[in-house]
Amino acid sequence: MIRKLHASSRLSTVPASPIRKLVPFALAAKKRGVKVYHFNIGDPDVHTPAVMMEVLRRWKTNPIGYAHSQGEVPLLSALEHYYSGLGFDFIKSHDIQITTGGSEAISWALFATCNAGDEVIVFEPLYANYNSYATVHGITLVPILTTAANGFHLPPVRVIEKKITNKTKAILYCNPNNPTGTVYTRDEVAMLVRLAKKHSLFLLSDEVYREYTYDGRKQVSLLRYMNDIPRHAIMLDSLSKRYSVCGLRVGALVSKNTAIMEGVLRIGQGRLSAGLVDQAVASALTDVPKSYLTGIQKEFEKRRTILYEGLRKIPGVTIPKPEGAFYAIVGLPVADAEHFCQWLLTDFADHKETVMLAPAAGFYATPGCGKNEVRIAYVLSTESIKRCVKILSLALKKYEEVSVI
Amino acid sequence: MIRKLHASSRLSTVPASPIRKLVPFALAAKKRGVKVYHFNIGDPDVHTPAVMMEVLRRWKTNPIGYAHSQGEVPLLSALEHYYSGLGFDFIKSHDIQITTGGSEAISWALFATCNAGDEVIVFEPLYANYNSYATVHGITLVPILTTAANGFHLPPVRVIEKKITNKTKAILYCNPNNPTGTVYTRDEVAMLVRLAKKHSLFLLSDEVYREYTYDGRKQVSLLRYMNDIPRHAIMLDSLSKRYSVCGLRVGALVSKNTAIMEGVLRIGQGRLSAGLVDQAVASALTDVPKSYLTGIQKEFEKRRTILYEGLRKIPGVTIPKPEGAFYAIVGLPVADAEHFCQWLLTDFADHKETVMLAPAAGFYATPGCGKNEVRIAYVLSTESIKRCVKILSLALKKYEEVSVI
Repeated sequence: MIRKLHASSRLSTVPASPIRKLVPFALAAKKRGVKVYHFNIGDPDVHTPAVMMEVLRRWKTNPIGYAHSQGEVPLLSALEHYYSGLGFDFIKSHDIQITTGGSEAISWALFATCNAGDEVIVFEPLYANYNSYATVHGITLVPILTTAANGFHLPPVRVIEKKITNKTKAILYCNPNNPTGTVYTRDEVAMLVRLAKKHSLFLLSDEVYREYTYDGRKQVSLLRYMNDIPRHAIMLDSLSKRYSVCGLRVGALVSKNTAIMEGVLRIGQGRLSAGLVDQAVASALTDVPKSYLTGIQKEFEKRRTILYEGLRKIPGVTIPKPEGAFYAIVGLPVADAEHFCQWLLTDFADHKETVMLAPAAGFYATPGCGKNEVRIAYVLSTESIKRCVKILSLALKKYEEVSVI
Repeated sequence: MIRKLHASSRLSTVPASPIRKLVPFALAAKKRGVKVYHFNIGDPDVHTPAVMMEVLRRWKTNPIGYAHSQGEVPLLSALEHYYSGLGFDFIKSHDIQITTGGSEAISWALFATCNAGDEVIVFEPLYANYNSYATVHGITLVPILTTAANGFHLPPVRVIEKKITNKTKAILYCNPNNPTGTVYTRDEVAMLVRLAKKHSLFLLSDEVYREYTYDGRKQVSLLRYMNDIPRHAIMLDSLSKRYSVCGLRVGALVSKNTAIMEGVLRIGQGRLSAGLVDQAVASALTDVPKSYLTGIQKEFEKRRTILYEGLRKIPGVTIPKPEGAFYAIVGLPVADAEHFCQWLLTDFADHKETVMLAPAAGFYATPGCGKNEVRIAYVLSTESIKRCVKILSLALKKYEEVSVI
């Protein structure tokens, strides 16, 4: 038997990160002495709380052994306390599975609810890595378009229902939304809950940006509906953005569905445990002063406003006012945003400074969408954001001139 | 359309950990005031090196942001240096993908080489979590039995070739072996290399226990053959056991196959990064004195000998002399080892002490195998091992009496 050695065909379908694939050009720019402002990735500049840093400085446990597969007891208790403080005192430790970042929570939720070939309804533009997890698990994402015209809010229920087939197993949404910055209203979340009930679908709510809401808005958590639809509801969480600990890799999957929870624990046993040190640091969340979270919320609201007011004055740029999270999908007066983003790194600089953006095409599941859009993560200081807006404005002018030639 | 809400059928096929499923009984025993010796899990009692602990105590980086998706540069360099020290100076940073523990490395290697429905040849008894990763990725493990009679060494080449079908994509093996403690000879590894070449198969070598070899043996790494079969060879590694940092979740996938490496990097981008703190701690591996590893090796060789000499004296107990790692598959004079292991926790104690063992059935892919065997992880002090052997000897006597009644 003669045959060829090939990587699996499914490996080749795993998409590259739209946020990270321009990294080599950014590195080259930095090598040339150009300062690159990172408007491309949601890695906040906000400080990690002092009480969390202290856990590292005072670390004594030796050896650094495995953690429990479900998660360390102090962290489970801390999360129970945190959810209770949000008004959800019925979420108990046994409803929580600690995951290695929100990434693992999303990936497991998809695996736990769908067989290969099943469909999951998502709203695009979407968190790009949903594409990655769906591909790995052989699941088809069925995208429903949301648009800048109504601030990327959800379409009417009939538009969603039209996409439900006998293969549909779940609706997955992100609230507040990465990459659009939209905060879904109570009516919108209630509509999704009704849909899930009516059509026997799982409802997967990615709530990583819960605290980041602006102009007096409050996030409507799926936890609010967890006793109404205990078997349908799965909430996906992460500490990364809330406490500025993206590098810690601590997330959670929360559900009252015991078959789901028992199943994900078995997957969790297969990978042994999430990190012991990371979980210990995360457990300090109960000691983080409330002012920390409100301070971050205020800071990002200010940044949002500066970005929004700055960008909307640039001719040809469109941006709906972001309502939450720290992202915006921005329309640019260019034909190919990916080319423009690359050009910003390879051919442009103003006083030896440039901006790195994420082309938005990778945030759509539908090929061809988002070609003239970029996603901006406003995780920089207000001064830097002002400078980035200026650079972008100059770059668009220059790019137009170059393109005409 | 009326339908039922069910977790995915594939979720129900993910196996529970044979090491961890008796945990509730152990917790109950502890609550009753019984001391439980953990002979069931390979979480070493050896101290994490001081230079690694120091990285935590001196931690300054704030915020704790994302790491690079491929892995942090200092850790990649440290591993390059480590592999070079083993005589493999041709392994470069670009051949290495940092993973969240060895678990992620094994899981990705299976996904990267196999489509759903493909087959992977394994040797049983096997590392139980191979079953878990294979199930998640829809891959069929094709087990080839190895037996205590020849120390769980590999069968002749014709036995393996018989199992190769047109669906076979890879051979996955663990060397030194968890759970058997077998160290494959140079001839055995060379045989697998020839097989991979002849039949165009990937060869996946799990080398987590590289340094743990006894009686003058040296591990034969697949790295030795990486230039012969650069497209076939994938080496899977972890720092967990080598530096007693199981809770750190740092592993690596090493290959010269660029399609594989580019693909796993894209999976890596999808989950953003491995932990930043864990990788920083792991990077200190270059500063760990050589005496640390040789000290551990000597300590475990001593423990191995005490365990082996102790157990073989118990009537009806069979144990081939373990050659490496820190495990042994031990045959017991009982009909149902799982029942015996549970009984040890629920009904037996000697001076308020008992032993927790892992029933071996979960280490076989073939149902019905290993029913009268247990896996022992000798990660306890020599004094504790002696005490465990004594407890086990008394327990077997008592169990026989009880069973007769």
